[in-house]
Amino acid sequence: MIHVVLVELKIPENIGFIARVLKNFGYENLYLYRCNVAEESFKTAANAKDLLKKAKIVEDLNSFLSNFNLVVGTTGISGGDYRFFRKPIITPEGLRDFIGGDTAILFGREDFGLLNEEIEKCHALVKIPTSDAYPVMNVSHAVAVILYTLRDLKRGDEKLVTAGEIEILIGKVIELFELINFPERRRRREIITLRRVLGRAKMRDYEFESIMGIFTKTIAWIKKIKTEKEKSQEDS
Amino acid sequence: MIHVVLVELKIPENIGFIARVLKNFGYENLYLYRCNVAEESFKTAANAKDLLKKAKIVEDLNSFLSNFNLVVGTTGISGGDYRFFRKPIITPEGLRDFIGGDTAILFGREDFGLLNEEIEKCHALVKIPTSDAYPVMNVSHAVAVILYTLRDLKRGDEKLVTAGEIEILIGKVIELFELINFPERRRRREIITLRRVLGRAKMRDYEFESIMGIFTKTIAWIKKIKTEKEKSQEDS
Repeated sequence: MIHVVLVELKIPENIGFIARVLKNFGYENLYLYRCNVAEESFKTAANAKDLLKKAKIVEDLNSFLSNFNLVVGTTGISGGDYRFFRKPIITPEGLRDFIGGDTAILFGREDFGLLNEEIEKCHALVKIPTSDAYPVMNVSHAVAVILYTLRDLKRGDEKLVTAGEIEILIGKVIELFELINFPERRRRREIITLRRVLGRAKMRDYEFESIMGIFTKTIAWIKKIKTEKEKSQEDS
Repeated sequence: MIHVVLVELKIPENIGFIARVLKNFGYENLYLYRCNVAEESFKTAANAKDLLKKAKIVEDLNSFLSNFNLVVGTTGISGGDYRFFRKPIITPEGLRDFIGGDTAILFGREDFGLLNEEIEKCHALVKIPTSDAYPVMNVSHAVAVILYTLRDLKRGDEKLVTAGEIEILIGKVIELFELINFPERRRRREIITLRRVLGRAKMRDYEFESIMGIFTKTIAWIKKIKTEKEKSQEDS
């Protein structure tokens, strides 16, 4: 279970945005340590006002943190005078690899971040890899990126078309080539291309059916007109 | 190269936050289509004011998008009345797997998102996996999550087919539909499917020529046999 702990945030809008991000990703546990919650916080919280209302106030940060299995600090900078406190620094994906149990993730002040005495208490320190040109993110966007990275990955289990099914489609194209006397020397090349393009596209079933439909309809039309033509030639 | 296109954003703060997110992750290309940039935008942009100032204004969205190799829409909802327009929906990680060339990512209005006619033009549609309890993210947080997921992509710079060229191919398929009286009610659907499959495949020039060849040859054959048939009917 992940618990988000905001430490002395001063801008009310940021606190509301963070509540919204939590609710967006299905998290519930928000803790406020000396944060400036105001009317504007409830505006930016939008439909996560309930979550913001339920947020727990932390009085003593140290004793509060002692209940967690893992305490994680976040930082926007990776160096400075206190480098020892700030390493090793891991990425959100790195955190994902070993996170477990009840985990508190601390996000610090808009201007100074977390103080060294707070960082010292953390088991791990996370930094989002940002551009050197402008490394400092707004805290609510940093929360969004980290919570997104840590969410339960729900991969779509949509069924994708198999290589065998693509070959059925290619069989149709070969049939079309026969019917319209497509130049022999170019057939193999076009087929390989089609196979690669369709393979890369990782089609869903209904997309496969749709494209099959284009070729089956075309082939049916051609066969029909060929028959009609032969018939009219016999008649004449 | 990734290009972020904002479509009719109304809240000035969001536009500034998005400029900041771009700069945080080392992106530079921001485009504004009918967006409400105001003083507040420059406040939330913080140290990314330069990037916001350099943002390009888009006048005609359709012709603007025709220059890109891949056009990606974003959505906060996955169903509704227009489900066909809204599938397949992929995750940001899914997009990462096949993104390439000059890619435009569209983010829509705070209230309505992208319109169906905008979504129809997209080669791929991305949705951030969010909680059913509150799926709708603030647009600037959605941008943060998607740009973070796509960061550090190093792709080859092979020349890829543009959206405009894919439309030329689609024009050929429409011509084929006319010739073979392909069922009217299914045409639009097959076209959207074809656009998405071919867009996702990110074709190289020679692959485009190859697939164009299949359709031009088929069309030429059909036209020829139609002419012959008409002629033989006149003769008889």
